[in-house]
Amino acid sequence: MPSTTPSNTAVPVTVLGLGPMGRALAAAFVQGGHPTTVWNRTAGKADELVAQGATAAASAAEAVAASELVIICVIDYDAVDSILESASAAIKGRTLVNVTADSPERARTTAAWAAEQGADYLDGTILTPTVTIGTPNAVFLFSGPEALYERHRDVLASLRGTATYLGTDFGRSAAYDVALLDFFWTSVSGLMHAFALAKKENIAARELAPFALGIFNILPPIMELLAGNVDDGIYPGEDSNVASVAAGIDHIIHAAEERNMDTGVLRAARAVAQRVIDEGNGTDGIERLAEVLSRPAK
Amino acid sequence: MPSTTPSNTAVPVTVLGLGPMGRALAAAFVQGGHPTTVWNRTAGKADELVAQGATAAASAAEAVAASELVIICVIDYDAVDSILESASAAIKGRTLVNVTADSPERARTTAAWAAEQGADYLDGTILTPTVTIGTPNAVFLFSGPEALYERHRDVLASLRGTATYLGTDFGRSAAYDVALLDFFWTSVSGLMHAFALAKKENIAARELAPFALGIFNILPPIMELLAGNVDDGIYPGEDSNVASVAAGIDHIIHAAEERNMDTGVLRAARAVAQRVIDEGNGTDGIERLAEVLSRPAK
Ligand SMILES: NC(=O)c1ccc[n+]([C@@H]2O[C@H](COP(=O)([O-])OP(=O)(O)OC[C@H]3O[C@@H](n4cnc5c(N)ncnc54)[C@H](OP(=O)(O)O)[C@@H]3O)[C@@H](O)[C@H]2O)c1
Ligand SMILES: NC(=O)c1ccc[n+]([C@@H]2O[C@H](COP(=O)([O-])OP(=O)(O)OC[C@H]3O[C@@H](n4cnc5c(N)ncnc54)[C@H](OP(=O)(O)O)[C@@H]3O)[C@@H](O)[C@H]2O)c1
Repeated sequence: MPSTTPSNTAVPVTVLGLGPMGRALAAAFVQGGHPTTVWNRTAGKADELVAQGATAAASAAEAVAASELVIICVIDYDAVDSILESASAAIKGRTLVNVTADSPERARTTAAWAAEQGADYLDGTILTPTVTIGTPNAVFLFSGPEALYERHRDVLASLRGTATYLGTDFGRSAAYDVALLDFFWTSVSGLMHAFALAKKENIAARELAPFALGIFNILPPIMELLAGNVDDGIYPGEDSNVASVAAGIDHIIHAAEERNMDTGVLRAARAVAQRVIDEGNGTDGIERLAEVLSRPAK
Repeated sequence: MPSTTPSNTAVPVTVLGLGPMGRALAAAFVQGGHPTTVWNRTAGKADELVAQGATAAASAAEAVAASELVIICVIDYDAVDSILESASAAIKGRTLVNVTADSPERARTTAAWAAEQGADYLDGTILTPTVTIGTPNAVFLFSGPEALYERHRDVLASLRGTATYLGTDFGRSAAYDVALLDFFWTSVSGLMHAFALAKKENIAARELAPFALGIFNILPPIMELLAGNVDDGIYPGEDSNVASVAAGIDHIIHAAEERNMDTGVLRAARAVAQRVIDEGNGTDGIERLAEVLSRPAK
């Protein structure tokens, strides 16, 4: 153990799943001075970690037996379930911290399964890429029993960054995750379309990029206001209303169609604005989109 | 003229169009110490500006006659054209700076019309909301003859913020604008969907908002890399490939459908990813989306 780590934080940890994220988590625990046991379905992924000081277990059950605190990070909850089933003999009395991404429903189901096995359970979400793990830029969410979170937060702090405890509902961190990825992937899709549209006018993506970041800076100062209005169901349209946004999107669709592009996402966004207009609310602010989106399209 | 303004910058300016943005521009010119003449199709919009020191003109032609430098900021280029036609007798020898939003094509057409009238022309784009005008947060783009831009940049600097000159193609600032609004409105649409999805799990938009800003902080550090890869047509998929993003979007669609939401935008984004997969490029990075989006969907 590195001498820089106080001995009271040298708590054994197991990491199940050594994809890019599992490896990053395990490396951070090793770095944090925790005796770290690792396992992966397919062999060979542990070699570098072992060189850094981790111990490779021959089976998931052996890995679970090695530490009271067991982190699981794999592709989805089907994988989680099959791994935990294979290790079920060792699971009683363990604390499972499942940072695999999936839906709130699956988090609650896995929590119930863990309780049946006599294990404690925390669900978690990782909001930032692998390179952030072990740095101040990592962002984690956790939900489940508060005392359990408090008991393990010092060890989890080896992952660095910011961790937020969201309450006792096991599904809550997954619910945040799904909503945030909704925003993120829709935005990335818009960015890629913007790069493609700019290119049609011989504007390199490299030239557009700084302005794309610039236009994004519009959101932070208005985010709280938009969120508050969505919560309160008020839709002031003085600054920018849905009808004028719809007209703006029409210009973009027109420009993209003239340049022979795929306009599916834009037309879908335009259709949502049209629902607002058809319901007689075109002069409402853009917060009205959230209200309409919460109901299925005809 | 306020004594704080050096007299060599006290250049007469005319502003045509007094919507929220035109009023903000005119107020900034008044503030900057420029004798400012204003006009709007519908009367009454000038009153506050006149109280601040602006002069209201009785017609667009009278307003154009009052200053060599004429800013026009109205709803679209149809409005621009009808205003400029009505003032055409006064336009010769003027410099028109058109900061109305529209397509590159329209900017080039209006520039050609201005040349026929013997007027100089700059096209411009305002990337930030009215509240930013006259503050360091304003962002402007300009395109057209460079010497013309240089001649007027000191006066335009009264609007504060950052102005970027994009070159001689009159359509270039509009091309940036269309691409950037594409990104912006798609992202806002994703944000509103995220708020709606979170609400179905009793997560208030106010609770989600700080994390929505947080997840957005993922983009700045990777923006340049993504843009460079789009430009160079290379699509490394080691960190995150289109097939895994598609699987992630499937989870979000599933969660949203189970909660009886509108999933049109997500399904459209998912269909783009499917095009990449169907073309055999699912293991490519997300930059591949820009390439596919530049071609029409079947
Ligand atoms: N990568 C990131 O930047 C990032 C960021 C935030 C969150 N996350 C989340 O972190 C989790 C892990 O992601 P990742 O990037 O490490 O890669 P991943 O490709 O999502 O997951 C790979 C891991 O899943 C295992 N696995 C897949 N199918 C399995 C099965 N049927 N049974 C047992 N194990 C199975 C793999 O084992 P094999 O090696 O045997 O295939 C490997 O350990 C995901 O939920 C992801 O959403 C990742
Ligand atoms: N507001 C913002 O935050 C913002 C941000 C960036 C860019 N912009 C751009 O700035 C421009 C102006 O926007 P805005 O916010 O001021 O409001 P707007 O609603 O886009 O434009 C209102 C102005 O257009 C005039 N107008 C409309 N139809 C006309 C017609 N047929 N003939 C003559 N004038 C006509 C209006 O005159 P009446 O009063 O007579 O109707 C008013 O002066 C737009 O291109 C917009 O995209 C605005």
